[in-house]
Parts: sequence; structure tokens; C-alpha cells
Amino acid sequence: MVDKEQIPATKAASPKEEQQSVTAEVQVQLGDRSYPIYIGHQILSHAHEILGPRIEGKRILIVTNEQVYDLQGQKLQQSLEKVAATVDVVTIPDGEEHKTIDTLSTLYDAAVEKNLERSSLIVALGGGIVGDIAGLLAATYMRGIPFIQIPTTLLAQVDSSVGGKVAVNHRKGKNLIGAFYQPQAVLIDSETLQTLPSREISAGYAEIIKTALLGDSELFGYLEKNSQAILQLEPDALRHTIAACCRIKAAVVSADEEEKGQRALLNLGHTFGHAIETLTHYQVYRHGEAVAIGLVAACRLAEKKNNLSSQVRERLIKLLYAANLPTQFPNFSRENWEKAFSLDKKVKSGKVIFIIPQSIGACQIHKDRDLTIALEVIEELSVNP
Amino acid sequence: MVDKEQIPATKAASPKEEQQSVTAEVQVQLGDRSYPIYIGHQILSHAHEILGPRIEGKRILIVTNEQVYDLQGQKLQQSLEKVAATVDVVTIPDGEEHKTIDTLSTLYDAAVEKNLERSSLIVALGGGIVGDIAGLLAATYMRGIPFIQIPTTLLAQVDSSVGGKVAVNHRKGKNLIGAFYQPQAVLIDSETLQTLPSREISAGYAEIIKTALLGDSELFGYLEKNSQAILQLEPDALRHTIAACCRIKAAVVSADEEEKGQRALLNLGHTFGHAIETLTHYQVYRHGEAVAIGLVAACRLAEKKNNLSSQVRERLIKLLYAANLPTQFPNFSRENWEKAFSLDKKVKSGKVIFIIPQSIGACQIHKDRDLTIALEVIEELSVNP
Ligand SMILES: NC(=O)c1ccc[n+]([C@@H]2O[C@H](COP(=O)([O-])OP(=O)(O)OC[C@H]3O[C@@H](n4cnc5c(N)ncnc54)[C@H](O)[C@@H]3O)[C@@H](O)[C@H]2O)c1
Ligand SMILES: NC(=O)c1ccc[n+]([C@@H]2O[C@H](COP(=O)([O-])OP(=O)(O)OC[C@H]3O[C@@H](n4cnc5c(N)ncnc54)[C@H](O)[C@@H]3O)[C@@H](O)[C@H]2O)c1
Repeated sequence: MVDKEQIPATKAASPKEEQQSVTAEVQVQLGDRSYPIYIGHQILSHAHEILGPRIEGKRILIVTNEQVYDLQGQKLQQSLEKVAATVDVVTIPDGEEHKTIDTLSTLYDAAVEKNLERSSLIVALGGGIVGDIAGLLAATYMRGIPFIQIPTTLLAQVDSSVGGKVAVNHRKGKNLIGAFYQPQAVLIDSETLQTLPSREISAGYAEIIKTALLGDSELFGYLEKNSQAILQLEPDALRHTIAACCRIKAAVVSADEEEKGQRALLNLGHTFGHAIETLTHYQVYRHGEAVAIGLVAACRLAEKKNNLSSQVRERLIKLLYAANLPTQFPNFSRENWEKAFSLDKKVKSGKVIFIIPQSIGACQIHKDRDLTIALEVIEELSVNP
Repeated sequence: MVDKEQIPATKAASPKEEQQSVTAEVQVQLGDRSYPIYIGHQILSHAHEILGPRIEGKRILIVTNEQVYDLQGQKLQQSLEKVAATVDVVTIPDGEEHKTIDTLSTLYDAAVEKNLERSSLIVALGGGIVGDIAGLLAATYMRGIPFIQIPTTLLAQVDSSVGGKVAVNHRKGKNLIGAFYQPQAVLIDSETLQTLPSREISAGYAEIIKTALLGDSELFGYLEKNSQAILQLEPDALRHTIAACCRIKAAVVSADEEEKGQRALLNLGHTFGHAIETLTHYQVYRHGEAVAIGLVAACRLAEKKNNLSSQVRERLIKLLYAANLPTQFPNFSRENWEKAFSLDKKVKSGKVIFIIPQSIGACQIHKDRDLTIALEVIEELSVNP
């Protein structure tokens, strides 16, 4: 993993000019599938300069949704049109319930209709849903065509757009149908977050906290000092935070692209989180909110299994509170929780996989056939125990 | 590429015992995705011994169709059941028109219903259609789970089961949705061909001729001497021919897994062949029959473009005749042919890619924006010119 944060140019640049350039760049190292993550503020309309040969002379299909297109689409489209052969746009309906094979099918139709060839390019402009489904389109159209991620939610900027997991949901399981397929580049414009509802900002912030807890104690400290700056979307705080998260994700993905080992660490908080989402049918919590609760539970589990200090959980809860994130489980029966765990993709030969912290910035994989203690944790941390 | 053809055991083995073992093995070299192709006669019921650790203790889902299951399924299932944790079977309807996203969707449902996990195994038992769709299921279920090919048509044994191209059709294009996803092993039992209709044998034989013409002059000579033995399914002739074809395919795939260069050579005869299939809506010709015509056309094109001797075409036509394969184009207008070419996946920036022979056993990639000569060839070789 290589990265550079740009040193302010020595020649006198106006503050505006400075803001419009890439201010951090993180490299995901994956041999001939390596790619850069470009991070900056107000850089969307400079996409054609930043992405250069990846778009020049190409047929491009932007996959987005109507809301995001209305807010950000034209800026991107106009930029790409300066150098691309053709730029078409296709939208998918908003909402997790549309992240399906059926929606994917409409995207295949669009790709065919717009005459996309093997050398054409899919650009995902949107949150994690758009990124995941557009990525699977790119992975499977003509057995794989180039693909660029332009994430516009905080969650997508710090997590889902990096690492090449692409997927749609099956009615019996989230992200059950998918692939590992790396983009050619990720372009992150933190200005796009200005229009994002605050609940979405918080949900993304939960993944930032997760990332710090699992792999970066310095970032954890930075968050404790700069929560407000980040949540108020100050460009410098965003750049620092997004770059730090991308760096960690890039390092983990570089070491284990297809989740055969340590990439599983990125699932910190997710075993509990997914169980919550399953039982509430993805209707009550944003993914990040479920993860927030899951993080608290992972700490509590680590206290019981691993003697983790309860101070970690206290510091975690403070961070979550600052972003209005939930920290307690909804109420369901023991049987329901057990069933929810058993449906998890992370189940292996009957064992449920939990990631639990060892300290702030380090965690480990923990497999459990016996769910007694996990269920105890849920009971302790439930709203009406 | 490594391969060994077994030398008859020195200890006296009954002919029956000898027949039931793997008599040729070809290795597809792809780093950590390398895999063996086991070839033999009457080896299906020994699958558990041959495949060993790849199936032991696994949850297995056999994907097949009813016809193939009735003929071959139980033998395989009983063998796998000896060592697997569970063996379930799911069938898809027979016919190219069912090689679709919708059918794939039913397979996802089956995989979920049978509780397949990341470590479970998909086994494809059938022709190219079953192999292609089961492979795409394996490639995309939980972002990729292990997969074994057990091809039961000649075409699948000499071509489609090796190399990792998996796909379903889109209504606007064949194999338009797919991936490169290598199996863990290929097991070829030539006895399964005994029940295959002779038209299917011939269709597979066309791909054998293609393989010889593009990469193995010795095999071409062998075919000229042993057509009848092969078409009558004599085990030794089949073993020799299947192993030779697998060796060539393995070498090409090892050098260029994702068709960025020389893998395109395997498409010899296919540009014309696909155009024929497109115009006849996949209703008139078996794929191999269309390829047969395409091979003749590729030779004729090479005569015009490359001064290939017309003797090559004559020898080719003799081989095709021996298997009752067609050698002349159906009648369509020039405009129709042009349109069919433009829909081909192999079109790149407006250029149509033809593979043309240089001599028996060697061919080259040829790109053409101007289709005049290709259309001339079609006219010359049409049924009622
Ligand atoms: N691939 C991965 O590694 C990975 C990791 C985590 C999550 N995910 C997936 O990501 C998805 C969740 O992503 P998400 O949280 O970004 O949700 P999302 O894509 O649904 O976006 C949230 C909402 O914000 C809107 N939106 C997006 N950008 C906006 C902007 N700039 N201004 C205003 N509104 C905007 C969207 O239209 C949507 O209504 C889930 O499907 C999850 O499975 C994938
Ligand atoms: N993946 C690749 O590299 C590749 C290469 C070439 C072709 N293909 C694909 O392969 C498909 C064609 O494959 P195919 O020619 O094997 O057709 P197929 O799978 O349709 O099989 C032909 C017929 O034979 C039947 N059958 C199969 N095995 C039998 C047996 N042992 N006894 C009796 N009947 C049997 C089938 O039910 C079917 O009716 C096409 O979809 C084509 O796109 C893929």
C-alpha cells in the first residue's frame, strides 16, 4: 500500500484551485489489478482530468439513481463528455429492495441497448447500492468490462467502493449473489456529501468508527477529537478520515482479496449487525446503525471471551452517541437470534464467525459453535432486557 | 502444461479394471487456480476416488438436466454420496433457450434452499449448457464457491468444460452475461457419450476439427485416419482425441486466461459461425454445425487474404463430410450478414475479428473494418449463390 497526501503547492494557488484538486491518493496494491483511490473536494467536475486515459475515447455508461443524478449527475456527465466517445446514463430505483437480479437485468438491457463493448466503461455514481450493482454488471457483462467507482455516500466513500466486493441481494440473503471484481479507479469527492441526509452521514460514520477500532488506534483518537468537524463535513477532516479508512481497507484487501483470511476482520460488528438487519427485515436500521450496535456487542463479547477492558466499549459508545447512532439491540427471542445467525454467509460448517477486538486498533477472528455467550451479550444489551 | 497418458500397468489387470481408471490427465496451469482434467472410460462411478479431497465431507449440489440425470445421474450421485456430507440434485430445462438469467435465478434459489455454504461444491453434469450455467452459479453464489465440471457431450468434453468461460445468454446476445471462473477439476468419462445422439457427436466433432486446424497438425492427421473410430466412440480413439484437444485448450488458456490476446484463436470459425446462428435464431444449426461452416469460410478468407493453399480447405471439407457436417452457408442478404457481424461480442471499435489459418495447425488474428471480402466468401459458399 502506497499513499501520499499532497503537500500544499509552493506556487501561490488560490484556495479555490487548491480545493479542486486531488488532495490524497491511496493505492490498492493487487498486482496487475492495482488501482488508485483519488480523494478531494469539488473534484467531480474534473473527473476527466483525473481519470485521463481510463475514459478517453471510451463508450461510458453511468449507473446511478434519479436522486443522485439530479444532485451530482450533470457535473460528472459534462466532465466525462469532454473526452469520452459517448456518455449514457441509466438509473435504478432507490432502496435496498431494488438491489436485485431483476434490477441487474434491466442494466444488462441498458448496456446492450447502448452498444457497450468489451472495452467500454461502467461508472457507478451513488451510494453502496449503486456501486454494488453497477460493479456486478461490470463483472459479468461480456465476462467483465472496466469499471470506475464514484461513491457519493460517506459509507461508500470509506468502505463499499473500495475492495471489489460487488453483489445483489437474494430474497433469502443479502449480497448472496456477487463477485470479487476490482474497479480501475475510485474517485471520491467529499463535496458530494453536502446533500446527504444526516442519518446517512451517521450511518457512514459507524463504518469509520469500525475501521478505526479494527485497525487504526490513531484514527480512533482523531475521531474522539474531531467528531464534530467530520459530522459537519469540513473538507480537511473528511479528507483525513476518508484517506485513513481507505488506507486500512486497501491494506487488508491487498493482503487477502477474496476473504480467505484476514479480510474477514473488516466484518467487525457485522455478525451481530446482520442478525439485527435480518430480524428487522432491513426496514428499521440503516446498515451502519446495525453495525454500530454490533460494534458494542463485539466489544462486550471480547470482554467475556478475551478480557478486553470495558473502557474500550465506553469510549466506543461515546463516539457512537456523538453521531446519534444506536447502541442497544431491539428485542427478539433467543430462537430468533439463533436462526438469524444460522443464515449468515459467514457461517462455516455450523460455526458462527465473530470478529472481536483485542484492543483499539487490533482485532481477531473468533469462531463459535456454541452461541450461549453471544446470546447473553444480546440479552444484556437489549432495549428492554 | 503438463500431461501424461498412462502406460498400461505392467501387473496383469483385467481389461475391465484398466478401462475404469483415468487413462489420461491434462493439467491446466494457472498458478493457484491450476486444475487437472481427468480423462477415462467408465470412470463416472469412481468420481469419489478420483476427485478425493475436493468432495470429501462437502455439501454438494449437482446441476444437470432431466435427460442427463436419467442416463448418468445416479451413477455419479451414488459415487459422491460415499464421501460427501450431502449430495443434492437440481435440474434445469433442456435447450439453449433456457440458458438465461431466469434459469440461473432458480439455481440460486436451489443453492439457498439446500443451504450451500462458501465451502460447498457445485458439480455440473451435462453438456455445455449445464456447464456454462452451473459455472456462472458457482462464480457468483456467495461471490464464488468451488466447482467441478463433468461434461457429458463431446463438445463439452473437448471444449466448453475447460478454460473457465461461464455464461448465460441475453436475449440480444449469446453468452453476454458471464465470467471467467475456473473449475477445481474436470472429469471426463467418454462412456457417457454412448447415449448421445449422433447429431451431437458430429457437432462436437466439428470443434475437434477446429482445434486440430488451429493448433495441432498431428491431431489433424490423426483425424484424417481415425474419423470412423472416433465417431463410433471407440474408447482409445476418444481418449487420444479428447486429451489432444484438452492439451491445446489448456495451453492457450494458460497463456491467456481472460482472452486479452491469443485465446481469441480458439474462436476460429466462430465469427462466421455466430453470424449464422444469429440469423437463424439458433433454431436451425447446432453450434458445432455453424462452426463447421465457419471453418470452411475461415479457410476461404485465408486463401484470399493470406494465400492459404486451397488444399487445406479440401482436406477440411473431407473431414466435415465424414461427420455429416454442413459446409455451406444458408441464404441471407448482404445487409443481414453485416448486421449479424456487428452484433458479435468480438467486434472492437467497429472492427470485426476473424481468425484465419496460416497452415494446418497454425492460425492468426485478423481484424477487418471492411467486410467486403468476408461477404464475398459467404456469397461464394452459400447454398444457392
Ligand atoms: N461492497 C462492499 O464492500 C460493501 C460494504 C458495505 C456496504 N455495502 C452495501 O452498500 C449498501 C449501502 O450503501 P449506502 O449506505 O451508501 O446506501 P445507498 O446506496 O442506499 O445510499 C443511501 C441513500 O442516499 C442517497 N444518496 C446517495 N448519495 C447521495 C448524495 N450525495 N446526496 C444525497 N443523497 C444521496 C441514495 O439515493 C440513498 O437514498 C448496502 O447495499 C450494502 O450491502 C457494500
Ligand atoms: N464455455 C465455453 O468455453 C463454451 C465453448 C463452446 C460452447 N459453449 C456453450 O455450450 C453450449 C452447447 O453445449 P452442448 O453442445 O454440449 O449442448 P447441450 O448442453 O445442449 O447438450 C446437447 C444435448 O445433449 C443432451 N445430452 C447431454 N449429455 C448427454 C448424454 N451423455 N447422453 C444423451 N444426451 C445428452 C442434452 O440434454 C442436450 O439435449 C452452448 O450454450 C455454448 O454457448 C461454451
